[in-house]
Amino acid sequence: MSGNTFGNIFKVTTWGESHGKALGVVIDGCPPGLKLDESDIQKEVNRRRPAQFSKISTTRREKDQVEILSGVFEGKTTGTPISVIVHNKDARSKDYSKIKELYRPGHADYTYDLKYGFRDYRGGGRSSGRETLCRVIAGAIAKKYLKENFKTEIYGHTTQIADIKATKFSKSFIEKNELRCADKAATALMQKHIETLRFKEGDSAGAIIEIVIKKPQAGLGNPIFDKLDADLAKAMVSIGAVKGVEIGSGFDVVNLKGSENNDQIESKNGKANFLSNHSGGILGGISTGADIVLRLAVKPVPSISKELKTITKKGKNAKIKTLGRHDCCLAPRIIPVAESMAAITILDKILTKW
Amino acid sequence: MSGNTFGNIFKVTTWGESHGKALGVVIDGCPPGLKLDESDIQKEVNRRRPAQFSKISTTRREKDQVEILSGVFEGKTTGTPISVIVHNKDARSKDYSKIKELYRPGHADYTYDLKYGFRDYRGGGRSSGRETLCRVIAGAIAKKYLKENFKTEIYGHTTQIADIKATKFSKSFIEKNELRCADKAATALMQKHIETLRFKEGDSAGAIIEIVIKKPQAGLGNPIFDKLDADLAKAMVSIGAVKGVEIGSGFDVVNLKGSENNDQIESKNGKANFLSNHSGGILGGISTGADIVLRLAVKPVPSISKELKTITKKGKNAKIKTLGRHDCCLAPRIIPVAESMAAITILDKILTKW
Amino acid sequence: MSGNTFGNIFKVTTWGESHGKALGVVIDGCPPGLKLDESDIQKEVNRRRPAQFSKISTTRREKDQVEILSGVFEGKTTGTPISVIVHNKDARSKDYSKIKELYRPGHADYTYDLKYGFRDYRGGGRSSGRETLCRVIAGAIAKKYLKENFKTEIYGHTTQIADIKATKFSKSFIEKNELRCADKAATALMQKHIETLRFKEGDSAGAIIEIVIKKPQAGLGNPIFDKLDADLAKAMVSIGAVKGVEIGSGFDVVNLKGSENNDQIESKNGKANFLSNHSGGILGGISTGADIVLRLAVKPVPSISKELKTITKKGKNAKIKTLGRHDCCLAPRIIPVAESMAAITILDKILTKW
Amino acid sequence: MSGNTFGNIFKVTTWGESHGKALGVVIDGCPPGLKLDESDIQKEVNRRRPAQFSKISTTRREKDQVEILSGVFEGKTTGTPISVIVHNKDARSKDYSKIKELYRPGHADYTYDLKYGFRDYRGGGRSSGRETLCRVIAGAIAKKYLKENFKTEIYGHTTQIADIKATKFSKSFIEKNELRCADKAATALMQKHIETLRFKEGDSAGAIIEIVIKKPQAGLGNPIFDKLDADLAKAMVSIGAVKGVEIGSGFDVVNLKGSENNDQIESKNGKANFLSNHSGGILGGISTGADIVLRLAVKPVPSISKELKTITKKGKNAKIKTLGRHDCCLAPRIIPVAESMAAITILDKILTKW
Repeated sequence: MSGNTFGNIFKVTTWGESHGKALGVVIDGCPPGLKLDESDIQKEVNRRRPAQFSKISTTRREKDQVEILSGVFEGKTTGTPISVIVHNKDARSKDYSKIKELYRPGHADYTYDLKYGFRDYRGGGRSSGRETLCRVIAGAIAKKYLKENFKTEIYGHTTQIADIKATKFSKSFIEKNELRCADKAATALMQKHIETLRFKEGDSAGAIIEIVIKKPQAGLGNPIFDKLDADLAKAMVSIGAVKGVEIGSGFDVVNLKGSENNDQIESKNGKANFLSNHSGGILGGISTGADIVLRLAVKPVPSISKELKTITKKGKNAKIKTLGRHDCCLAPRIIPVAESMAAITILDKILTKW
Repeated sequence: MSGNTFGNIFKVTTWGESHGKALGVVIDGCPPGLKLDESDIQKEVNRRRPAQFSKISTTRREKDQVEILSGVFEGKTTGTPISVIVHNKDARSKDYSKIKELYRPGHADYTYDLKYGFRDYRGGGRSSGRETLCRVIAGAIAKKYLKENFKTEIYGHTTQIADIKATKFSKSFIEKNELRCADKAATALMQKHIETLRFKEGDSAGAIIEIVIKKPQAGLGNPIFDKLDADLAKAMVSIGAVKGVEIGSGFDVVNLKGSENNDQIESKNGKANFLSNHSGGILGGISTGADIVLRLAVKPVPSISKELKTITKKGKNAKIKTLGRHDCCLAPRIIPVAESMAAITILDKILTKW
Repeated sequence: MSGNTFGNIFKVTTWGESHGKALGVVIDGCPPGLKLDESDIQKEVNRRRPAQFSKISTTRREKDQVEILSGVFEGKTTGTPISVIVHNKDARSKDYSKIKELYRPGHADYTYDLKYGFRDYRGGGRSSGRETLCRVIAGAIAKKYLKENFKTEIYGHTTQIADIKATKFSKSFIEKNELRCADKAATALMQKHIETLRFKEGDSAGAIIEIVIKKPQAGLGNPIFDKLDADLAKAMVSIGAVKGVEIGSGFDVVNLKGSENNDQIESKNGKANFLSNHSGGILGGISTGADIVLRLAVKPVPSISKELKTITKKGKNAKIKTLGRHDCCLAPRIIPVAESMAAITILDKILTKW
Repeated sequence: MSGNTFGNIFKVTTWGESHGKALGVVIDGCPPGLKLDESDIQKEVNRRRPAQFSKISTTRREKDQVEILSGVFEGKTTGTPISVIVHNKDARSKDYSKIKELYRPGHADYTYDLKYGFRDYRGGGRSSGRETLCRVIAGAIAKKYLKENFKTEIYGHTTQIADIKATKFSKSFIEKNELRCADKAATALMQKHIETLRFKEGDSAGAIIEIVIKKPQAGLGNPIFDKLDADLAKAMVSIGAVKGVEIGSGFDVVNLKGSENNDQIESKNGKANFLSNHSGGILGGISTGADIVLRLAVKPVPSISKELKTITKKGKNAKIKTLGRHDCCLAPRIIPVAESMAAITILDKILTKW
């Protein structure tokens, strides 16, 4: 209920604060027999780290060393809870001490105080994006399970930053650039734009990312409330910076007629072959077997060095600049998180037959 | 797990098929002491009925008479499950018999067969939009509770059909026109467009609707996975025709800088007054107290009289026209459903303090 | 949360008051393809009815006609929610009107008022044993599924009433006598005792019943909190009159040494053959494949015609006799309810693999 | 679903194996503002440790040092997940290596292999009683919350070992003797009996313990399936060695007439004063405000040094002696575990109003 658990059968519970002793995740319900070691997880966690050569991302060096504490024996999952921990090492608490009494615009400081009466103000505490590290850990396990058992793969890429849109698609280019954009020319423009925003304006940029689930199992999802797309929508919007989600044609359906938006079907070896994919691979909440395609709206990083109006905890007017080591555009770091949430959702549906 | 229940404390379970004996809903967890009779529910159910004077909506006369069977005693809810039933009266089963072996494009026929092996093919069976009737029943109760206890009100309106956008806003006009559009001039254009589509082209139209939650309680929602916006997103995408959902600025965040998208705060009597509402009333998954604003992409009705390609249950190529009594644009009928899902979600969060 | 739903995958939600319009149950998560019609359910519901020739049971003639409203199509379950309703016909409300302001000892009148502020006082309202009718409906479906798919059968019998213990066991005799006792001689003594209690003393009797699950699947149950025995214990104690539950040797373990209580194992065709069944078929919360054996303590019917002390709703001292048409010993009528709860629990575990 | 989580609002998830790197627990849903440090937890964890001066308990020196990793800030709970870890230090893996291929009678070895295909065989792995350490950690927090906010206290004591019954009750004596028995004379006899069993016979003893919840809130519990007693029964039977549970008069109800078992009520300052407590403080699944009384049947420790028949993993007949450092009678160590499960259940009900 308290909202730190996701999934029904493949159940992921995260814990930990940005600047506490450690963060971690308990994955309950992973079927037994999956080969798993720390390196399987570490490589995904590393994808979430700020780019090392980057001017767009935080300059913090988060050394997020994962350690499996339970649920794996002789190299395989046992079916019992998998507990994974990451100790916080590079926590410079002093950076945050002066915003203790101020509510940062665009952040959860104000609402946490509303709900809980007080908050761990160090680096955002529980509301920090650092929590998504734990989702990536769980997602790494889900991804491995999906790939090995069902050949399902999940990837994401940045399709737009500010008004710069990717118009070409080279899958192999995605992981070769720090924006995770599949269009080389657009990437160059995006990077330039971000540098200007960050270093000249002290500001940040919004983005759109696309998540693709290739070769999903057909027949996944539950009718009515627990539709596959409904659960994917929840999974995506549960990521802090995500303000919108589309499935298939998404908001573009307003421009389509029924005769255009309906995906016609032809027989291919006696099975359904959809002639288009406006549905995004889901009909009536259940996967058709076609690729599942989602797009997410990612808000500009709220921590910026421009001065903004706010109030203090006691309700007095104030000004704030959120200095520190922050990202400028979240898209590339959110991609592994969104892939992870997609993987967890898909695996959970596979394990929830009825 | 099977997906026919929504909510944790205010728990709504719907049942029934489009052409079965009846449909109904069990609402468990409604606090005791709410004054409730059938007319409170009937008026919302009537809002979901096809417009009687309409050319855009189905010509079926659904007489959906609600009957409360339990959970209300001496005019008040008792805290025990409220069971409400609607008997199906106007079910012309023969209309559907010839599509028994065909998969209607844009419908769940194919995926239900994938998942369950067979299906109640009469009028879409369980996957019919008729199921949303039960959501409106539950929503009517949630809305009444919210209004009486918290003065929270929820309404929706159509903001776009095809390329026609509402640009003016007259709240009082919404329920006076059958499209539930707040802009009189746009409404006229929309209606004309729909008539052409329906009667000349045998086709259907997509739409965008906006849902507004006025005066929500502040401090609602749970951090991390069960964020208020995440649960609202799930609630909305669980409505069959919804293919996208936005909160606050939504996909428009891509066009905003952090300094623009961050809602600045001023003190108003010692409390937070947000100078804009790009966040849509939710920060870190918790309501700020500002209005909560959502927008939904509504796909064109898949049942059209244009002929489309499909396959039979046995995997042979075929053609299909979905004749019958169908809506052309779902927006106006989905509005009470989306309001209901919003009301259920908000009330459930109120009752889920931790 | 509100407690009217049982099960995770095979999910049973009951609703309705003793003297309301109807009672019913929604069974969500029943796998598709099970042959089912009303007679399958009716025969189990009839087993719960007060014995017609009986002096021990209520003289009410409850005509509980079940009607399936959804989830079954062309004679088979569809995988969507099965809604079953029973209309209340023989409700003599006036019998109860005078206890409106009094708290019946041994009943839930006082605690419902504590929790909810007021209650439907007609015949106990929601707290009436009549609710168990809905459990028997759901149980009938679960039992049929278990028998047809796994050859698992579940039966119960009365092993003790007051100080009269059954010492012989004739399975075929159980359903031939209205006490559901497997020992003919003991049955005669029990009946005599009950007649005396009921007609001479205006009092009632406690009992012990045993529930046996024959040929359960091996490997059912989840470790730690959702052990099979833990969930069975909850299922049983959720039946109003049950004040204790034992698995296998139960409380008799206090008299056993480890060397006696440990069920030794021999190989039988390379598989485990347990040489005794002190564990009651469950080790570490997971079924061994041996019969699962439970025993329940059933309290004497609290509605008796002896005068007892109580208080009024306003807190004044008073006296009460609970006249009316009541059972004297609940054991025989609770047996189908307990069998049903066992069947629901077992089927839910089968469907919850991880 | 996988069974490692207990509670709906106050949600406890345990993880870890007996001889893995660590064990731990995540407590989600603890309300904010509770003063908490490690010593609050450590003192309860120490109560679960084997008695240091004891001949009845394992000679292992489990140094279970608790460490809070999250959810507590500036000495108070924040409302976010509390993660607590205990590193395993004294794990002598070699003790267990030779039983790798054998199924210990009375243990979960066989059923874990049935369910999962293989198991962490070191010291019972996940099925070890060592997991209850995590329940005690969570229970310590729940107990503190209950005591400080509601003055509710929970204690347990041993009422019978083998045929030796406690007949006197001195509350202060309970924690002064290693059997946690409230009767000094009985304690001496019990200890003698245990020494004989353990050192002369290499065997073990069963027991009965009683758990008392003093001054519980009235009005706790949910009707029908989630009755307070049903959830307490599940909580208790989820403890490995517990084979039976009674509420109030329990199995003794068979010896009582309705007129005896019904707790009569008198007015005391306008409120209900129950003249007896056969109900054990719960009517209709809801607490009356009277003390809640439970009794548990605790099986003899299955690990004994007597030789017993069993089979190997490959299905061959074999003999086994479970040597090692084991308890002889679990009662005293199970008491803090049962108290903890009671505290967690009660607090969860307090937080689950509807």
